This record gives sequence, C-alpha cells and structure tokens, in this order.
Amino acid sequence: MTSNVDASNPDLVTVDVPTHWYNLAAELDEPIPPHLHPGTKEPVGPDDLAALFPAGLIAQEVSTEPYIEIPEPVREIYQMWRPSPLFRARKFEEALNTKARIYVKYEGVSPVGSHKTNSAVAQAYYNSIDGVKKLTTETGAGQWGSALSFAGAQFGLDVEVWQVRASYDSKPYRGFLIRTYGGTLHPSPSDLTEAGRAMLAKDPDTTGSLGMAVSEAVEVAAANDDTRYALGSVLNHVVLHQSVIGLEAVDQLNAVEPGGADVVFGCAGGGSNLAGLSFPFLREKLHGRSDPRIVAAEPSACPSLTQGEYRYDHGDVAGLTPLLKMHTLGMDFVPDPIHAGGLRYHGMAPALSHTVELGLVEGVAIDQRAAFSAGITFARTQGIVPAPESTHAIAACAEHVANSDKEEVVVIGLSGHGQLDLPAYAEFLNGSF
Amino acid sequence: MTSNVDASNPDLVTVDVPTHWYNLAAELDEPIPPHLHPGTKEPVGPDDLAALFPAGLIAQEVSTEPYIEIPEPVREIYQMWRPSPLFRARKFEEALNTKARIYVKYEGVSPVGSHKTNSAVAQAYYNSIDGVKKLTTETGAGQWGSALSFAGAQFGLDVEVWQVRASYDSKPYRGFLIRTYGGTLHPSPSDLTEAGRAMLAKDPDTTGSLGMAVSEAVEVAAANDDTRYALGSVLNHVVLHQSVIGLEAVDQLNAVEPGGADVVFGCAGGGSNLAGLSFPFLREKLHGRSDPRIVAAEPSACPSLTQGEYRYDHGDVAGLTPLLKMHTLGMDFVPDPIHAGGLRYHGMAPALSHTVELGLVEGVAIDQRAAFSAGITFARTQGIVPAPESTHAIAACAEHVANSDKEEVVVIGLSGHGQLDLPAYAEFLNGSF
Repeated sequence: MTSNVDASNPDLVTVDVPTHWYNLAAELDEPIPPHLHPGTKEPVGPDDLAALFPAGLIAQEVSTEPYIEIPEPVREIYQMWRPSPLFRARKFEEALNTKARIYVKYEGVSPVGSHKTNSAVAQAYYNSIDGVKKLTTETGAGQWGSALSFAGAQFGLDVEVWQVRASYDSKPYRGFLIRTYGGTLHPSPSDLTEAGRAMLAKDPDTTGSLGMAVSEAVEVAAANDDTRYALGSVLNHVVLHQSVIGLEAVDQLNAVEPGGADVVFGCAGGGSNLAGLSFPFLREKLHGRSDPRIVAAEPSACPSLTQGEYRYDHGDVAGLTPLLKMHTLGMDFVPDPIHAGGLRYHGMAPALSHTVELGLVEGVAIDQRAAFSAGITFARTQGIVPAPESTHAIAACAEHVANSDKEEVVVIGLSGHGQLDLPAYAEFLNGSF
Repeated sequence: MTSNVDASNPDLVTVDVPTHWYNLAAELDEPIPPHLHPGTKEPVGPDDLAALFPAGLIAQEVSTEPYIEIPEPVREIYQMWRPSPLFRARKFEEALNTKARIYVKYEGVSPVGSHKTNSAVAQAYYNSIDGVKKLTTETGAGQWGSALSFAGAQFGLDVEVWQVRASYDSKPYRGFLIRTYGGTLHPSPSDLTEAGRAMLAKDPDTTGSLGMAVSEAVEVAAANDDTRYALGSVLNHVVLHQSVIGLEAVDQLNAVEPGGADVVFGCAGGGSNLAGLSFPFLREKLHGRSDPRIVAAEPSACPSLTQGEYRYDHGDVAGLTPLLKMHTLGMDFVPDPIHAGGLRYHGMAPALSHTVELGLVEGVAIDQRAAFSAGITFARTQGIVPAPESTHAIAACAEHVANSDKEEVVVIGLSGHGQLDLPAYAEFLNGSF
C-alpha cells in the first residue's frame, strides 16, 4: 500500500483503499470460541446458518485466513468515500491543553454518515451473487437500516427494514433516508409477521424493542427462499468487513508517525466499529512493530465490557440466535434510553470479547453527559458534530490526555457524524440531561 | 498547484488547497457595474460600508486584482475539509444511459455540509483582525447561519442569528446545529429590535421573511461598535471566497481530462455557489485553454436569470441595502415555498449577472419535481443525498446528457448534502408535490 503525505497539508494523509480485509483471529494462538446452536448447544455449522446468510458470509464467519480479498465490486463502491480521512485534530489538542498528538479516523464521510456501510456493501454483494432478491433487517436509530438500504440500491436488492417503533416515531429522519434509497420501512412490532402480531396482541401500545425487530426480520427471511437476513454488528464477518477502517488508519498514521499509535480509542456497542478500527493496530502489536493500548469506550448505561460476564448468551431477546461467547449483561438487560442508540446492546462481539479476555483490549465506561460535553468541544474546535456513539471515544480520549505533557500518539475512531442526532445535542445544551 | 491521481482510484483526484482566491472581474474588459447608495444613487464608497463590514472585505468588494492571497489562518481551516472531492459519477452515468463523463465537485464534506463555510470562515477572519467581537446575520433554512456559527467558533467571535420564523419552527435541526457551535439563535421577527417589534405589532402571527431577518441583523450590527454584519451570498467578496471551489475543480479535472470541461452545471440562488464554481472555468476560457459552457440551474419558482430584468434593485425587501445591478424579479417578489430554500431569492449576484450579460453564463429553469427526481436517482446510484438546491444542477445535467452518445466532459457542482432536508424527500416520495 502506498501513502501520500500532501506537502501543503501534512495533517491529512491519503492511502490506497485496502485490497483485503484483515482477520485478526487467524493470527491469535487461541481461537475465538465457536457459536453454539441454541437447541443442541453444539458448534453451529454452515448448514445451520444457510437459511439466513449467503455462502460467502458463512465462510467468513469461520475463516482461519488472516487476509481475505475484497471483491472488486465491493472495493469499487468503497472508493466512493474510502479511504476515509485520518486527520490531526490540532484545535482539539489546544482545547485540551495537551502535548499528545491526536489523530482522528473519520467514518462520517460515508454516504449514510457512519461506518455501517463498510459491512452493508459487502453483505449486499455476497447475497447478490447467491441470487438473493431481498434482504431483511432490523434497525434501532436507523444507521444500519439506512446503510443496508444504500447497499441494496447498489446491487439491485430489495431491502425491508423493521425499525423499533419508539425510534420510528421519534426520530424519523433516518427512516426518510431508508426510503430515499428505495428501502421499505416498517415500525416494529408490525402486523406483517407472526411474531409482530403476537407482540401487538399482547400489548397494542408497545414501543417495540431491537429484539422484537430482529425476530420479525428473521421470520420473513427464513420463510422466503429468495430472501436473507443481514446483521449490522456482533458477528465475525461484520467485524472482518470493518477492518478496512484500521487497515487504512495504520498506514495513514505510519506515514506521519513512524512509531505508530500509543493509544487507540473507539466506541463499542455491538463491537464491530471498535474491532474494525483496532484489530489492524493489534496486528502491528502481534508482529512487534508497535505496542498500542486499545481502549473500548462504552456507555456507563450499558457497560457490557466493564460490568458484564464473559459467557455464552443469546444475541437477541427472544433467544432465536446462536449462543455467542461474549461479554454480556444478559439477554434481558434493558439499558436506559441514552441517545447513543448504537451502544445500547446487551452483549459484545465475540471477536472483540475474546481480545479483551486475552488482555489486548480494555474497556472504559463513559457517562453520557461527559460524552456530549466532549462532543461539543470537538464540534466547536474541529467543526464535525460527532455521532452520540462516537462522543464516547472522544470523551475517553479527552480524559486520558487533558492537561498532559506526555507526547503520546493517540488515535480516535470517529464512527460517524451526528447531523441526524442534533436534537440530542439541543437537549444537552438545554440542560435536559 | 500539484495534482495527484491515485493509481488505485483514478476517479478521485486530489490537489493542493489554493493559496489565492480568484477574482474573474479583474480579467474582464467590462467591469461589474458598481453598487449604488440607496439615498444618493451614487456609487457606494468604503465609508458607506464601514458600519457593516470590516476593511478587508470592503477592499475585496471593489478589488481589481485577479488573485488575492488567502490568509494562512483561513487556509488552515479550509484544510479541515478542503480540497473537497471531485469524483467521476460512473453509476449515475449508467443510470442516465449516457456516454458523457460526469464529474461531481462535492462541497457537502464541509463541517456544516455545504459550500457556505468557504465564505463564512473568511468573513469571520477579517472581522476578527479588525477587533470585532460579534457577528450578526440572517438565515432562512439555516445553512448560512450554521456556517457562520462554525466560523465564529473558530475565531472566538459571538454569532447571533435571526432565522425566518417559518423555518425556525418547521426545520429545527439547523437551529440545533447553530447552537451546538455556540451561536445564538432568534426567530425573526423578534422583540429584540425596533424593526422586529414593529413587524410583530403589525402582525403578531407573522411567519417572517428573509428581508425582515436582514433588517434585524443589520440594525443590531449598525448600533454596536464591536458588532458587524455578515452576508452569505450576492456580494462580490462572497463570490470571491467561493472561487476555491472552481480553482480546485479545474486542477482536479485537468489531471484526468486534459481537454477540460465541456459543460459546467451549478445551482444558482444568490449566485455565490455557481460563480465560485464556474469563474475559474471561465478563466480557462478567457485564456484560451478550454471553452466550457456554464449553466446556472435556477428553480422555475424563482427564475431571476431566465425571467427577471437586468437592472438596479435592492438586495432586501425593506430597501435598506445598496442598489445592486442584477437580474431581479423585483424586491417584492415572493416565490412559492419550494424546498430549496437557498434558491428563493429575488435577485442574482451582480458578478454573476454581469457574466450572463456578457454571454459567458446561461440560465436554465428547473421544476422542483424534476429536481427531486434527479436527486433520488443520484442518491440511489452515488450514495450521496443531495441538498434540494443541488438537485437543480443534477437535473439540468441529467436533461442535457440522458441517452446521449456524445462523449462530453461534464461537471456538476454539488453544493451540499441533504441529510437535514430528508423530510422534503419523504414528501416527494409520498407524492405530496
């Protein structure tokens, strides 16, 4: 991979878009514990997953290859916005009165404004070459649903999204985005599925939940031959796709900081963002080229890494998914309704949980007010209004480097922008939380 | 200026951020007709403008230099997002079944998502070096108000924005953005000014107008020594600042298309976006290096170029501003409430009107439905949801190149993204207009 330091702007480094995804698990001595079948409790095989996922993604879920080639049609779409920028955040450094050098890897340049497109495009591609006509999925705030709708439009796939009704009603903009890309949107629970009708019969006024939306999307995918299901985080193949973030960031950083990173901060909900950012940095550590600390910033309202147990648990509330070995607060855990909807998940990606157990990644819990306060400082200094999720990484970094004389090299993964989350900023500024 | 064609991605060309703005007027045989004092009808002098604008901007308003150096503090901030991308829109070409090669110059990567920051940062800088403490301005949909609030945060200036009440109430997101950057926001008319109180006394339920908001902002600036007023379009110094768009685009395009552009499309409201994009292309024409057509896409609901008269008229409804020689529908013209709020202005920048009179730029009127239809095709193919204003340029281009075998090189100026305008897309998809 070649890099190019712009002589007129040494704070912005461009590199080639990666040709391969990076699979850290293949380079670890201990493998990630396998997913278990919810009935037999035996490791799931490809056949167990075939009703939901296409062959290409199932192969990636259990791959032992460290590098997996990015198909050319996927790479072509990545090039619409990739490489994403890595920039030195000098004005934020000044505001923090720190000698640390802060670099920001910014995924908000994607069409939908977050990292979610990195996996959505790959998932749509592998489904399209298997002859799939439609993808179903769930979405909370709508980041994943809009990313998959964009990806579906690229490959001629219909996309049907069940959105938690509370978000569907209160945060309509990402629903509009889903429709603009041609996706079909339903509030969940809906009367379109058995699961949804049962839920509505039980409580006609329910505002829904992510677990219920999963059940509706899975039911429709399982019942139709030409339809598959797509998941936006947690699973190994999603983590794999997100590795483009870190692969670019490592090369971009090395071009200006030959010693590499000292600390890498990212936010962690389901874990794909943090894993995608950090695993290539851990590759550098495994191969002795640098020794970065990796910090996963999670919300104190949903602290799976810092307060959860490491054990097998279901990925959904209804218990339909395979059992995943992960840090979990329990499948029934209901977090407070914080604004960072993307971080309100009871578990953590098995791949990321595994690296935490190996001592390669550490968790830190961030209070929502500290997160938004850091987000506003970042917006006023660097211009970008961060997604509420991303503010957790910014706050974790700020706490670490503020008023420090240590000349560290620090990387913040900025997973998305917060243009569609501005009402949350307004509430914070009004003192509502 | 050096350019760099990324070997792995020849569709994306990077160049240096310009060191100078370009002033086309200085290279034309006929000068732009001067602005006239509203009372004396004589050309306005620097003293007439000093109560509202700082010295640096007044000098630029009447400059006869073709190149004006961009101050280093301004250029440093430009580098947060500049150079903005120029990319080949291959999937959009496919959708249009055309042999034209379409390049898109995209200003939506700026912190607030539009080209407005290019002038906001410059205006905040020149005010700050004159010791100004506060800037006042008006805003409609909020693009300019948020850009100036961002710029104020960069230079430590307070920014006070009067927003047309209709937009303040119905489109709150950009108001939230203004506040996130630290700006102060008032609905207009307000009870904070003489003008506002008079308007409210006359009609307590008024939804306001841009002309009224101008009056409030100007009144406050004129009455306070440490306060100045900032305007987001129309005037020559704003057009000058926006030339960074076209300067980059010319160099980016030349790196992959040595023959330059055949046609350049941009949307035109007050005119600064289209002028900023196109004047460097007209420089190429004046110097015999290429011969591009320049097309200004305006809304059929507010067709100042295609239906207006070329004459002296006021820039505001109340008649407080200097008289400007421009294409105008008349200061009292009230356009239909189309979604492209940034194109609802009765006049056109004198600098741009002048080039139209000289035969260098032509106008085309675009229907709002055609604009949104093109915008949706663009979103589904290229991923970016365009601002409603920008869809007019996309539609004008689509009409020109669709089903064409002509191998033209076409440039579209995409002035901003439409993430905060998604309700308008939803209304279009619902068949509401």
